[in-house]
Amino acid sequence: MSRYLIGVDIGGTSIKIGCFDLNGYLIEKWDIPTDKSNQGENILKDIAYSIINKVDVQSITGIGFGVPGPVSDGVVLNCVNLGWGQKNVSQEFNRIFPYDYIPVRVSNDANIACAGEVFSGSGKGYKNVVMFTLGTGVGGGILVDGKIVEGLNGVAGELGHMLIDRKYNLPCNCGKKGCTETVASATGIVNLAKLKLKETTQRSLLRQYDNFSAKRVFDMAKQGDEIALQVIDEASDYLAYAMSLVALTLNPELFIIGGGVSNAGDFLLDKIKTRFYPYVGPFIKNQKMVIASLGNDAGMYGAAFLVRP
Amino acid sequence: MSRYLIGVDIGGTSIKIGCFDLNGYLIEKWDIPTDKSNQGENILKDIAYSIINKVDVQSITGIGFGVPGPVSDGVVLNCVNLGWGQKNVSQEFNRIFPYDYIPVRVSNDANIACAGEVFSGSGKGYKNVVMFTLGTGVGGGILVDGKIVEGLNGVAGELGHMLIDRKYNLPCNCGKKGCTETVASATGIVNLAKLKLKETTQRSLLRQYDNFSAKRVFDMAKQGDEIALQVIDEASDYLAYAMSLVALTLNPELFIIGGGVSNAGDFLLDKIKTRFYPYVGPFIKNQKMVIASLGNDAGMYGAAFLVRP
Repeated sequence: MSRYLIGVDIGGTSIKIGCFDLNGYLIEKWDIPTDKSNQGENILKDIAYSIINKVDVQSITGIGFGVPGPVSDGVVLNCVNLGWGQKNVSQEFNRIFPYDYIPVRVSNDANIACAGEVFSGSGKGYKNVVMFTLGTGVGGGILVDGKIVEGLNGVAGELGHMLIDRKYNLPCNCGKKGCTETVASATGIVNLAKLKLKETTQRSLLRQYDNFSAKRVFDMAKQGDEIALQVIDEASDYLAYAMSLVALTLNPELFIIGGGVSNAGDFLLDKIKTRFYPYVGPFIKNQKMVIASLGNDAGMYGAAFLVRP
Repeated sequence: MSRYLIGVDIGGTSIKIGCFDLNGYLIEKWDIPTDKSNQGENILKDIAYSIINKVDVQSITGIGFGVPGPVSDGVVLNCVNLGWGQKNVSQEFNRIFPYDYIPVRVSNDANIACAGEVFSGSGKGYKNVVMFTLGTGVGGGILVDGKIVEGLNGVAGELGHMLIDRKYNLPCNCGKKGCTETVASATGIVNLAKLKLKETTQRSLLRQYDNFSAKRVFDMAKQGDEIALQVIDEASDYLAYAMSLVALTLNPELFIIGGGVSNAGDFLLDKIKTRFYPYVGPFIKNQKMVIASLGNDAGMYGAAFLVRP
């Protein structure tokens, strides 16, 4: 009989569920809406029913969960986006899904995105990997010796909240100023562009828009727009700097750049690479860096990774 | 029959050798000079003879080495201070010390200092620990899940070379400017003091000396000297900042501060603690931080840790 891994990536809007073979090959995926009513009390029930409806429970080897919040030793410490406070996910899930011989594991979404890329994406086969997920914010995931590093309070890999900028000092949602995500996320790139447009009267294709996305800044930069280029260079520099700090801490085999911003591909990667080496100095010569390949499915793959045999 | 662990800390001037019981209790220690002639070719032979002379070889469970340079997978990549290039220490040692059933392991000196504190010092019992060794330079050692993190090129834990200062931009031996060790090592503290004395005409007890040590700056600061206090505050701030970067990466259970500068004790630790939390923000509330307790013997203990059963 075939055996399956189930990977569940719980987001604030929808829940992605994937059924994988034991090698991390995706067989089927689907998604259900996230019901955040009543502090998200229906979320685990909805997931359990959905799995039971789709998959022969007898064939399930394990179920992994990714959640958008800190996790330590299998306990979710809080998930503002889901309405959850502290929650022992595997215990609660097993109350609804009464097959307690099936292992249930849970980890943070940025961590499992990294694990997913290592399981089946552009980090396949690596064991010491750091991933930066550049989206609305900046998430970080770390694997040491093939295992996710969660840290004491589940906040290992909060690479988006290293304080790295003292020039713009932009406020971060965390309450600090100058965090990586204020200058290197999609939001950060837009922040930098708006500041630069205000700062000078230089011509720029960006001036025709009242509002624009990070993707627009990249597109304009690729077309040679001087302001857009300066912004992408600066964001790349901040990211390269943040990566250098992690590189001198963990000296990983591989950095993976994921999230929406990573769609800029080699255009971004080349800029980061150039700027990385002056920050690490003589200690690291040939740092492997790649763009993530699983897109929004990385978390689902990584959730399955948690319960691989 | 009693069983012993042998810990060998190879320094540029002397080699410390310790004989430990299996729990990391030191039974006897001694040291021999480091013979750096002919690219340090006699070093391993001198160690082998010294061990054979002192200890009943039949009772040795394992021999661990610490070396002042990067190590990856048991291979020393280079050790300028010993005259060594790339060297497979366990292979070479076993050619001289022909008991190849006795395991031989090797790691970097800053890593084993951390491991030593965890084995028998102020980090005893912890598994996720980061140590900053503040001496002439700044060394770093990292344990994740009870294991030393060496990194791909053996440069994990090069925390002294994270670029953290852009105010003074002092040159570092590594070729970069503004590394942690330019502002937070013993040398860095003296650097900062000399700059501050030049910058102002403010009275300071330090002005009576042409040259002074970091210890002197601490002593003057403890006596309330304004300039010395500013220097120690600033160095503590840099160190707290460097620690925040590592904390948001690994979220360790414990930070250990070691090396000569750590003799300043709680005076230093309290200053670091105050400055650490604004840099980490809401992610970490109660970070454990302690002063190392094994002094210069930490490396020897950590070398023994490498071969603990």
